[in-house]
Amino acid sequence: MPGNSFGQIFRMTTFGESHGGAVGVVVDGVTPGLELTEAEIQKELDRRKPGQSAVTTPRQETDTVHILSGIFEGRTTGTSLMMILYNKDAQPSAYDEIRSLFRPGHADYSYLKKYGIRDYRGSGRASGRETAGRVAAGAVARKLLARRGISITACTREAAGVVCSEYHPDVIEQNPMRACDLSAAAEMEQRVLELAEQGNSAGGIVECRVDGVPAGLGEPVFGKLDAELSGAVMSIGAVKGIEFGAGFSAAGMTGREHNDEMQMASTDSAEEATQDGSGTKALRFLTNNAGGIIGGISTGEEIRFRIVVKPTSSISSPQQTVSVDGRNETIRTEGRHDPCICPRIVPVVEAMTAIVLLDQIKRQEAMTA
Amino acid sequence: MPGNSFGQIFRMTTFGESHGGAVGVVVDGVTPGLELTEAEIQKELDRRKPGQSAVTTPRQETDTVHILSGIFEGRTTGTSLMMILYNKDAQPSAYDEIRSLFRPGHADYSYLKKYGIRDYRGSGRASGRETAGRVAAGAVARKLLARRGISITACTREAAGVVCSEYHPDVIEQNPMRACDLSAAAEMEQRVLELAEQGNSAGGIVECRVDGVPAGLGEPVFGKLDAELSGAVMSIGAVKGIEFGAGFSAAGMTGREHNDEMQMASTDSAEEATQDGSGTKALRFLTNNAGGIIGGISTGEEIRFRIVVKPTSSISSPQQTVSVDGRNETIRTEGRHDPCICPRIVPVVEAMTAIVLLDQIKRQEAMTA
Amino acid sequence: MPGNSFGQIFRMTTFGESHGGAVGVVVDGVTPGLELTEAEIQKELDRRKPGQSAVTTPRQETDTVHILSGIFEGRTTGTSLMMILYNKDAQPSAYDEIRSLFRPGHADYSYLKKYGIRDYRGSGRASGRETAGRVAAGAVARKLLARRGISITACTREAAGVVCSEYHPDVIEQNPMRACDLSAAAEMEQRVLELAEQGNSAGGIVECRVDGVPAGLGEPVFGKLDAELSGAVMSIGAVKGIEFGAGFSAAGMTGREHNDEMQMASTDSAEEATQDGSGTKALRFLTNNAGGIIGGISTGEEIRFRIVVKPTSSISSPQQTVSVDGRNETIRTEGRHDPCICPRIVPVVEAMTAIVLLDQIKRQEAMTA
Amino acid sequence: MPGNSFGQIFRMTTFGESHGGAVGVVVDGVTPGLELTEAEIQKELDRRKPGQSAVTTPRQETDTVHILSGIFEGRTTGTSLMMILYNKDAQPSAYDEIRSLFRPGHADYSYLKKYGIRDYRGSGRASGRETAGRVAAGAVARKLLARRGISITACTREAAGVVCSEYHPDVIEQNPMRACDLSAAAEMEQRVLELAEQGNSAGGIVECRVDGVPAGLGEPVFGKLDAELSGAVMSIGAVKGIEFGAGFSAAGMTGREHNDEMQMASTDSAEEATQDGSGTKALRFLTNNAGGIIGGISTGEEIRFRIVVKPTSSISSPQQTVSVDGRNETIRTEGRHDPCICPRIVPVVEAMTAIVLLDQIKRQEAMTA
Repeated sequence: MPGNSFGQIFRMTTFGESHGGAVGVVVDGVTPGLELTEAEIQKELDRRKPGQSAVTTPRQETDTVHILSGIFEGRTTGTSLMMILYNKDAQPSAYDEIRSLFRPGHADYSYLKKYGIRDYRGSGRASGRETAGRVAAGAVARKLLARRGISITACTREAAGVVCSEYHPDVIEQNPMRACDLSAAAEMEQRVLELAEQGNSAGGIVECRVDGVPAGLGEPVFGKLDAELSGAVMSIGAVKGIEFGAGFSAAGMTGREHNDEMQMASTDSAEEATQDGSGTKALRFLTNNAGGIIGGISTGEEIRFRIVVKPTSSISSPQQTVSVDGRNETIRTEGRHDPCICPRIVPVVEAMTAIVLLDQIKRQEAMTA
Repeated sequence: MPGNSFGQIFRMTTFGESHGGAVGVVVDGVTPGLELTEAEIQKELDRRKPGQSAVTTPRQETDTVHILSGIFEGRTTGTSLMMILYNKDAQPSAYDEIRSLFRPGHADYSYLKKYGIRDYRGSGRASGRETAGRVAAGAVARKLLARRGISITACTREAAGVVCSEYHPDVIEQNPMRACDLSAAAEMEQRVLELAEQGNSAGGIVECRVDGVPAGLGEPVFGKLDAELSGAVMSIGAVKGIEFGAGFSAAGMTGREHNDEMQMASTDSAEEATQDGSGTKALRFLTNNAGGIIGGISTGEEIRFRIVVKPTSSISSPQQTVSVDGRNETIRTEGRHDPCICPRIVPVVEAMTAIVLLDQIKRQEAMTA
Repeated sequence: MPGNSFGQIFRMTTFGESHGGAVGVVVDGVTPGLELTEAEIQKELDRRKPGQSAVTTPRQETDTVHILSGIFEGRTTGTSLMMILYNKDAQPSAYDEIRSLFRPGHADYSYLKKYGIRDYRGSGRASGRETAGRVAAGAVARKLLARRGISITACTREAAGVVCSEYHPDVIEQNPMRACDLSAAAEMEQRVLELAEQGNSAGGIVECRVDGVPAGLGEPVFGKLDAELSGAVMSIGAVKGIEFGAGFSAAGMTGREHNDEMQMASTDSAEEATQDGSGTKALRFLTNNAGGIIGGISTGEEIRFRIVVKPTSSISSPQQTVSVDGRNETIRTEGRHDPCICPRIVPVVEAMTAIVLLDQIKRQEAMTA
Repeated sequence: MPGNSFGQIFRMTTFGESHGGAVGVVVDGVTPGLELTEAEIQKELDRRKPGQSAVTTPRQETDTVHILSGIFEGRTTGTSLMMILYNKDAQPSAYDEIRSLFRPGHADYSYLKKYGIRDYRGSGRASGRETAGRVAAGAVARKLLARRGISITACTREAAGVVCSEYHPDVIEQNPMRACDLSAAAEMEQRVLELAEQGNSAGGIVECRVDGVPAGLGEPVFGKLDAELSGAVMSIGAVKGIEFGAGFSAAGMTGREHNDEMQMASTDSAEEATQDGSGTKALRFLTNNAGGIIGGISTGEEIRFRIVVKPTSSISSPQQTVSVDGRNETIRTEGRHDPCICPRIVPVVEAMTAIVLLDQIKRQEAMTA
């Protein structure tokens, strides 16, 4: 599985740089017969696109998606689904400075060391624009998951030092930070704009919750559900860590505190118990320190994980760096960058989560065949 | 890539349950012509095996490795290398209780929901003993990496609430906690033994550092080095989170604080600079908040990540649980378990890290071919 | 997918040389809950083992299979199934000559050029004994296919210039040539023994038929059913070609001759028609020049293909060759070799066919999930 | 590896139907720094495109390639290379008949059985137009192989019952049949046109020769070079069989006849011998019945294989078939089809061969790393 493909049965292959001809994705393993429109894909892409608010970049990317294969008369055919977004924003002159300097926090130096060649226009393949293909593929996965009652919701849980103390999923799309707490959201926004004003940027934490996942998803021992989600989400630029359930706080806990005890559900849930034909019926966990995954397999509880997003690397404050030809220089990364990338990473986290889950579901169906 | 295989070019496939006939591994993509003895593999396995000290389980697993294929006249042939450890410790009667009860924190319930069948003897495939195969494959990878000057060192950084304030790699193998600070190690050991005495257990944090990795390893966009390391390490039982470099603390940092600025090395490093033929010579980062990986590609700086290890699930304190046939019960998981698993996870983390790195190096060689 | 693994969901990884410690296989993606005994696997292995008759090698390989993981209380657990056959026949002295000479028709030279090292004992990994692992994995696949009404039968169709003019599947296991025509079988046997007497060997053709495969198996465009079967079967040593249905004779046919026309089945098959809920009901093909596969997807007709098996390379007649150190030499490959390998390739062809079909079925289930 | 991807390190993912928006390919694992223009790709595509002569379809497909990613300043960047050909020829009304009838020899029925939905316009994904993406990817592979002195030449060896008795590689591109013998070519062309006149079509045999492949390519035991070439070439529509070297004629040969004996090259080749540093120097095979591959590994001799191409399924003669709703019908597949597809399959065979070889070379480099 070379670097531009992800997934095993439901699988995407992405292509495109921020300033080449296009970005996009080919999706394999799509369930045939699914009704699918460009508008549905576009809706998810619009959540990722730049220029949504003052806390995101004002760049006007043309994020209009076109489905060029895999659809016939409004339905998926089961063959490779190709979705593309053409690039229109190319202004090569804007990249004169970064052509010769390695920007701190960016992959300029590491790409050059890897490939011996570097597409310096807007970070080339390392651009966040690459994730548009992921979001498009994720939109398909989410639609298929919804048919099974699985929903995925990510939000900004912390940014610029401001922490959401409450969790209200309904407010997430109502504030530009995509925070889960409106009063924290307002404070975050103000702090982020202040940092932007100072030529600086902010990090944060994105939380993701998945409801409706049945117990039993995850492939021991290397395709564990948490292992695959980690690999998926850590592949998003700017993400530097992930934790499930109690996460890093488990380091200071004891087994008695961390273990999620079990109980049969009360008679109130009798109906639910009856629907479960496994012989273990209405088993419920009293806590969810595991974040819904034990031994790499879902338990039926809500899946919950958090990721840390580093502060945006592009800042207009002067920084020390080195030029391609080996001289010490000072750089200011001017221009149109998100002072905090959390709100735009939210839909990408959801997309990657959806793809992992759908792929695992398909493998689970295959295993028992 | 089904669940029991890991890696693309250097690839292992593990097999075995804690109480079946054997555990082991088949390794594909082994560089031919490498001198290799069972003793070298055994040395790494002995670091993982139970019964090394009071803080690990006193079980006497027979961890003697046999190489059954892929070696001829003391050298690897390039064909599939098979290494096996036979199981001898089977005492089925010891598992009477867990046969009918789901142990909190264990994968008993999730396995049954997944497969519809459960090997309850010592957790079956979910047993930590499964990692012996990983360590054996990792020993081969480490030997190949050493030829390239790459060394991997993991240690316990925190356990039972005690944090190592200093980092001395030379003391790690000199204390049963595999901590990097001897005074912290002594305190950790005491606290862990106290918890064990109380029928309880402790979590902790394991840190891993890799030196000698050249800039340029990692495959955008899904095979990024940090994404693959995360997927690899999160597949180890009991690991619930991972962070690179500044990790979760980046949430509260600004771009100016987090960005690693660059500088040309001083004349003192002239010799080193000369050896680097890339035209960027002795570029050095002033900080390493990135943990040695930017844009998913190694920068040439030390790679550094930390993982959180949950407290051992098996504790002798009574806990609420449910029986296989749906009754509420109380369980005490008696017996021979590590009160803190950190020291035995250390070699497994090193093994998985080695396998990812070697596999990436091989892919890098292939790419430029 | 490195060279020692095959399959995507139902996947085997084989290991072992003819004279190392063991040969065997790890199988991933096994449906859990399947009753499985070593005796069932052994039965298939006995069809492949040497020494079954005068036309096969009199070597007494110890082909006793042991299942070391993946089974609990007589059923598969869904985790990696490991099956092993220990080697006992090692007589290193028997390999003194081939140590220094490249045997014509053998992979001695190509292995040395590839790996820079060569395990010369009984061909090392290039030995036919490697296929024991395939047959063991295939036995599991065949059992799972049988539950779906799919049966696979291969036979020797031609050997030593003698062609079977009739096809009687019931006689295949009743003659040492595994031919489908008893009178041809007797003649084949006599000719093969004559050639053996003269220090020579014979080639042949093996035919494989698969019944009960539903229409719809095969993954366009690279995982086509015929493409995967070809890759699978061509990976068996000594196989030099494959053709489906009319095969190479199609070169001289016209479209009118080759196209398989279709018709609705007569009322006699009304019951069968009713069982098919696809809306196309009792569609039948009037001919089967396609061999049951069109556009890489099964049509529901019998799948039929033929492979050519080259004459055994090991012959006791003198042949020109070259020594490892570059001198011209004469070699006679003495000893215990099958003068015609067709009868022992039959079970290997069946095994590979079974693995491809089961893997395709599992992927088909996954696709529509 | 789902059905639309091929290769492991050098890997293509194709997309597109004959009458959707576009066909194309994403290529991963491209060596960075390669100079590459659209014109070079176009040149190969023009050899595959329809309308080249009277023996190919007069359809005017718009086969103009656009490279939309993976290129910067005229060189490959090492990131995913995307090449696309837009479709312009959509005339839905032309497909009224095949909408409701299953065409004999086509995948109409098998696709519907597989996916439950069928894109009937020009065969949808089963269209030969899908191979344009393969040819584009193959053009990149061929350019990289040429740097290593490897050249691939396929030709029509037989068609419509006419066999080329001589092999002149230089005439292949000079006749519309792409035959290797001009006098046979003229006769073939006449016979094919006669068949077309009669509403019929012709099959044939395509031969492929590869020169310059070093000994040592191929991955035992499932990634053998002949196994991978077979899987690759059999995935091309209309190909029904493949044979290497002596191929099916080996069935009637003896070991003494089939084995390729070896000899040290005469002093005339002393220079060549010196360049070979393997210690086996100027070893040469006296014959090449193996077709350049023994034990699945290249021997350094010319690789040679032949494939059988079935006669074109689309013919205007009336044939019996069945409608989608289960009625017996007669069909005439009118229109613009190649009466013999061999000449247009030639570049596709070359492309698939190139991709397999380059991918194997890359894996070989990785193995020894």
